[in-house]
Amino acid sequence: MTVSSPRDISPEQVVREEDLVARVQASFDSCQDPRLKELMQTLVKHLHAFLREVRLTEEEWSRAIEFLTAAGHITDDKRQEFILLSDTLGASMQTIAINNEAYGDATEATVFGPFFIEGSPRIEQGGDMSFGAAGEPCWVEGSVTDIDGNPVPGAKIEVWAADEDGLYDVQYGDGRVSARAHLFTDADGTYRFWGVTPTPYAIPYDGPVGKMLEATGRSPMRASHLHFMVEAAGHRTLVTHIFVRGDELLDSDSVFGVKESLIKDFDRRSAGTPTPDGRVVDGTWTMVRFDIVLAPADA
Amino acid sequence: MTVSSPRDISPEQVVREEDLVARVQASFDSCQDPRLKELMQTLVKHLHAFLREVRLTEEEWSRAIEFLTAAGHITDDKRQEFILLSDTLGASMQTIAINNEAYGDATEATVFGPFFIEGSPRIEQGGDMSFGAAGEPCWVEGSVTDIDGNPVPGAKIEVWAADEDGLYDVQYGDGRVSARAHLFTDADGTYRFWGVTPTPYAIPYDGPVGKMLEATGRSPMRASHLHFMVEAAGHRTLVTHIFVRGDELLDSDSVFGVKESLIKDFDRRSAGTPTPDGRVVDGTWTMVRFDIVLAPADA
Repeated sequence: MTVSSPRDISPEQVVREEDLVARVQASFDSCQDPRLKELMQTLVKHLHAFLREVRLTEEEWSRAIEFLTAAGHITDDKRQEFILLSDTLGASMQTIAINNEAYGDATEATVFGPFFIEGSPRIEQGGDMSFGAAGEPCWVEGSVTDIDGNPVPGAKIEVWAADEDGLYDVQYGDGRVSARAHLFTDADGTYRFWGVTPTPYAIPYDGPVGKMLEATGRSPMRASHLHFMVEAAGHRTLVTHIFVRGDELLDSDSVFGVKESLIKDFDRRSAGTPTPDGRVVDGTWTMVRFDIVLAPADA
Repeated sequence: MTVSSPRDISPEQVVREEDLVARVQASFDSCQDPRLKELMQTLVKHLHAFLREVRLTEEEWSRAIEFLTAAGHITDDKRQEFILLSDTLGASMQTIAINNEAYGDATEATVFGPFFIEGSPRIEQGGDMSFGAAGEPCWVEGSVTDIDGNPVPGAKIEVWAADEDGLYDVQYGDGRVSARAHLFTDADGTYRFWGVTPTPYAIPYDGPVGKMLEATGRSPMRASHLHFMVEAAGHRTLVTHIFVRGDELLDSDSVFGVKESLIKDFDRRSAGTPTPDGRVVDGTWTMVRFDIVLAPADA
């Protein structure tokens, strides 16, 4: 990275700027919530350090206000531009990293993304979570265990995905529910379902975050992935994806979500190959195995 | 300020977090605009330093997203919550400080605030900018000079203020235009007009910024003030206020706008005291002198 050297600033000016930071921090001194006080005073420290290091111009400040305003106005109950902003600045992934420290062989977490919706339909083992979403069928199977290898029966697995056109159901705006479901592990901790083979897609780039990516020469593309959220009593809830080995976008994921341990082999089978459950598939299909290890709740 | 000591973080975890910062910064390496690249990479540095220092929880991250969303949704062409946020975190005042370094005896700048509107009505010298706004009349007079004391004729002076109920015209939502005007200095650089005596008021606190102030034990009150913006060819545009000496809020202004040099004597005159221009005032009135010194445009 290139950061210009600080401009020549007079000692009086430095005092004036530092005094202001101290005054703003002191305004939070009487906050009764010690954590909130810490958050605000530390935010003020880093926010002012940024402004002072870059010597932000008033024009740039105005553009930042306009950017945040536009992000707020495009955000509704289906579109969340502030999450996209957090994602594309790596803030989401950093928060995930901070709160999911490595714990033994527990499966790594990654970004949540803006497309999870509460209340997905339940499917049975071997059911189809695509609900008509376009895409190459994909058989997903695996197990959920604790860090000692013991199966976790009854774990709730939420799965959600984009279709082959790169869109989640909520992005169509027609009320459809597809490529989104939940199921529960069997008594032996295993699970299996049909979904769609992940394909690359762009995060929504018709808003201010898209303009930021374009202006900075970045791609809005996400590496192909399938979302998982796994919840089980006594275990740390896992929010993660699995990625497709060989995807050329693995090194340039727009939200920095890729981790080596989450890259899986999606094996493609030619048309007519018998499926694990005897389903007749019209064309090629893929299969992937994802064995999930949950950390304890107090990890 | 109190900031908790860093939690005990494993070396592997530190590497993981630092690697992520480096990857996010590197994603901006191909940005063709060097200033934008600097802004984004420095923003990423300080944003991640904040997240890592406070060890932001996922719940806190969610609340931050909700806060920004609420700020966006309450913002419209009359209400600007992001400017209020910038103001109450001292970011507006810091930006002003950075861009208006002390220059000889030039009048100091302060925050712009969210209530300036383009297209104010023009008044003549001695005219009344209140346009019916409620408040004790205030005679304002002074001069505009350059740093060598030469008068600046034809300088455009924009003035705007809250009424005695603490509201700007745009906050009534009924389309009124009051306590807002512009005028031009005479050939000798002087100006004079009638306005309303400033009174303390709260910044809008019915939105997320107000909730933040309440949660942190801060007051939304602003010290009494009258806004000025002064523009003249060849000079640095001045955005400032004058404050009322004796106002008990001078030390706790919610947007950190007060500077000693901008505190002025608003002398109160009893009912019946002759006014400078022979106007008959029904009750008490005040008068204040504000001599403005403009820095050169290239200061």
